[in-house]
Amino acid sequence: MQKVHNYIADNKERFIEELFELLRIPSISAQSEHKPDMVRCAEWLAAALVKAGADRAVVMPTDGNPVVYAEKIINPKAKTVLVYGHYDVMPVDPRAEWRTEPFEPVIKDGRIWGRGADDDKGQLFMHAKAFEAMCATDSLPCNVKFMLEGEEEIGSPSLYKFCEQNKKLLKADIILVSDTSMISLSTPSITCGLRGLTYMEVEVTGPNKDLHSGLFGGAVANPANVLTRLVSSLVDDCGRVTIPGFYDDVRELTDSERKAFNKAPFCLRQYKKSLEIGDVEGEQGYTTMERTGVRPSLDVNGIWGGYIEEGTKTVIPSKASAKISMRLVPNQSYKKIAKLFEKHFKAIAPKSVKVVVKDLHGGEPYVAPTDMAAYKAAEKAIVDTFGKKPLPFYSGGSIPIISGFERILGIKSLLIGFGLAEDAIHSPNESYGLEQFDKGVNTIPLFYKYFAESK
Amino acid sequence: MQKVHNYIADNKERFIEELFELLRIPSISAQSEHKPDMVRCAEWLAAALVKAGADRAVVMPTDGNPVVYAEKIINPKAKTVLVYGHYDVMPVDPRAEWRTEPFEPVIKDGRIWGRGADDDKGQLFMHAKAFEAMCATDSLPCNVKFMLEGEEEIGSPSLYKFCEQNKKLLKADIILVSDTSMISLSTPSITCGLRGLTYMEVEVTGPNKDLHSGLFGGAVANPANVLTRLVSSLVDDCGRVTIPGFYDDVRELTDSERKAFNKAPFCLRQYKKSLEIGDVEGEQGYTTMERTGVRPSLDVNGIWGGYIEEGTKTVIPSKASAKISMRLVPNQSYKKIAKLFEKHFKAIAPKSVKVVVKDLHGGEPYVAPTDMAAYKAAEKAIVDTFGKKPLPFYSGGSIPIISGFERILGIKSLLIGFGLAEDAIHSPNESYGLEQFDKGVNTIPLFYKYFAESK
Repeated sequence: MQKVHNYIADNKERFIEELFELLRIPSISAQSEHKPDMVRCAEWLAAALVKAGADRAVVMPTDGNPVVYAEKIINPKAKTVLVYGHYDVMPVDPRAEWRTEPFEPVIKDGRIWGRGADDDKGQLFMHAKAFEAMCATDSLPCNVKFMLEGEEEIGSPSLYKFCEQNKKLLKADIILVSDTSMISLSTPSITCGLRGLTYMEVEVTGPNKDLHSGLFGGAVANPANVLTRLVSSLVDDCGRVTIPGFYDDVRELTDSERKAFNKAPFCLRQYKKSLEIGDVEGEQGYTTMERTGVRPSLDVNGIWGGYIEEGTKTVIPSKASAKISMRLVPNQSYKKIAKLFEKHFKAIAPKSVKVVVKDLHGGEPYVAPTDMAAYKAAEKAIVDTFGKKPLPFYSGGSIPIISGFERILGIKSLLIGFGLAEDAIHSPNESYGLEQFDKGVNTIPLFYKYFAESK
Repeated sequence: MQKVHNYIADNKERFIEELFELLRIPSISAQSEHKPDMVRCAEWLAAALVKAGADRAVVMPTDGNPVVYAEKIINPKAKTVLVYGHYDVMPVDPRAEWRTEPFEPVIKDGRIWGRGADDDKGQLFMHAKAFEAMCATDSLPCNVKFMLEGEEEIGSPSLYKFCEQNKKLLKADIILVSDTSMISLSTPSITCGLRGLTYMEVEVTGPNKDLHSGLFGGAVANPANVLTRLVSSLVDDCGRVTIPGFYDDVRELTDSERKAFNKAPFCLRQYKKSLEIGDVEGEQGYTTMERTGVRPSLDVNGIWGGYIEEGTKTVIPSKASAKISMRLVPNQSYKKIAKLFEKHFKAIAPKSVKVVVKDLHGGEPYVAPTDMAAYKAAEKAIVDTFGKKPLPFYSGGSIPIISGFERILGIKSLLIGFGLAEDAIHSPNESYGLEQFDKGVNTIPLFYKYFAESK
């Protein structure tokens, strides 16, 4: 293992230079103008994986953005690790808030700044480089497969079918994923729960055209006013979602589970300070950790209607819209919640407007067992590099495809992420600490070693 | 008078060609990029008024867009009419909804299509051409002054000071304004009431940056959710504004006033059909005509926050905003309502967010007495051209400067507008009927005649 760590230390700067090439490709999956960047990014990764030591790497077309598949089979009888990651990134708006160019990465204060620095280019690239280090030092103990997709940020619409069609190719003992965070570098953790997601869009239409708000104001339902009424009614004064049936399948934690859950270090004062908020807000009767970890939620991700430029326009808009997503917990189901939402939203809309409700994407919640071999191997690897046993952690985030893997491929995923809250993924000024990258790339080979040794 | 009408008939086509030149100038006052267009538009108008017969026309600078002033003094002892209009227009968004280019006017189906076709370029140009016809036929019976501003659509911020500084220059017996509508061509009307306006902007800030809605959703107040809550609470289930003190100064109509008011022809079925709405919505206990004519209202004119592009982004936005305007009726006061709004909005905001409330602009309501000489003269003129006595009409719209004229200059305004609801002012596909233009330009000289003859 020392050889591997030495190789990593000797090549550290080159790794970062290569990562910068990857970060410069603006592979935003949500925006169709970036289609060519998606292909370019996939091709770049395939080439990089061959250089790193893969027997072969291919850019495999899908109905959407291509999947990069690569493999190195050292022994058909050895264990096989399937590394999953995604090369697509979030949009960069609000653009004005960035202090550096989102697609021109720079190092400052010991961190890499740029869109995708953490999520997920920085994290998947640790796997490519750990793989290279093991190949170069002839110490790869498992077969390795890579499956890197370009649609995670839009709900992996093509990857489900890709998995269905490539079950044999993707056969593996564990899926290894670094697309999550740790509590902190001094409190390492392994994610053992992910929330599910139902992401909807609603459009409220009032009059058939924009109207003068003087001539019509007070007599015609304003779709922007109505939208605020409908949306605000979706969460009650106690912070509970009002959609009938929403909580029906939610698994309530037992008292002892709650106690264990709240043992993870958390400082409310520090949390509020870091976000500069006067108070937290959420479902009554639950702690902040519980609210993000094991309770469902409903958020407006975007809202728009009427005149939103400089100055004033006295208009009753014809339409107003919102993007609304709900985070789900075991045992809620994405499609069931989408249907409940649609039914409820249509039911509460007054006769004075028409509403259209669209299901944009979603995914099921996921729970990773802490007693599986891969989890134990990851625990040992982290003890080696962090000097501390990692805590099991329930993330509020969602990686919808993870539960899809289990359903389609019958393979569990291990969520060993090296992100931190301060990385500001999905936000302006995303970053990834050089120390996080270094810790990650050194931890991964240890995981392979312990996993290969496990029964 | 026959000479005047003949002149108009003979020059009709040229009038429209000239109006097209004016409509081609994109003089949008709300958008600072159009500053040069404002000056160009003012200069074009000054030149046009001199050609029409003015002794002099000047482009007078203000702190904002210039005012075009022109005059023709036939006799210091004769009555003086001050024509007010505005050469600025509304923004054109939503741009995609326009069926023709907003600043490339065309004639189709007997109507002029383009931004400003009615509001107010089309209407003010009727005055310029009626003036030309009277000058050319040597039949001008009054002194005439023109005051054409470029900031009406943003609340005339500079015109108040301009009036203060030019009281002597603007001395007149009546201010003549065509910036309103009639009930219909078969039910002509004169506007005798205008609502006031208070136009606010609110910004709700939650966390100090956009957050991942998975990692934080459910635990942190989402400013877009909070905004919908705050805004929706401003109007109750009975359609009444909930701001404390909002109705304190509202003059309630007597039963007989209400009866008279509701005599104007109005067909609810046709109203709903033309707007393609399933139902109207407004303050309980009032008719649609009352809701726009004599009752105050509160409308969201714009709302925005979070991700509003194509696709999905799982974000809790740091900020969300809305533009909210209230229409006021006698005896509400713009500034008082702005203060009540600000106080209330701040009071209802939870500790989990910060709010900023801005007063963007506003104006007082206005009532024109139906027994003044100018009103009687206008009535007679309309009987001549429309063959019917016009009804007094309470418009839901606002022209904030009108009450300013009365306060600063001590001059009443006569609101003789030839617009129609179908002109879709402030909306995409604004238009103005050729018949409306023709009726207007022929009515105006009759007004001058009867007004000059009045005691």
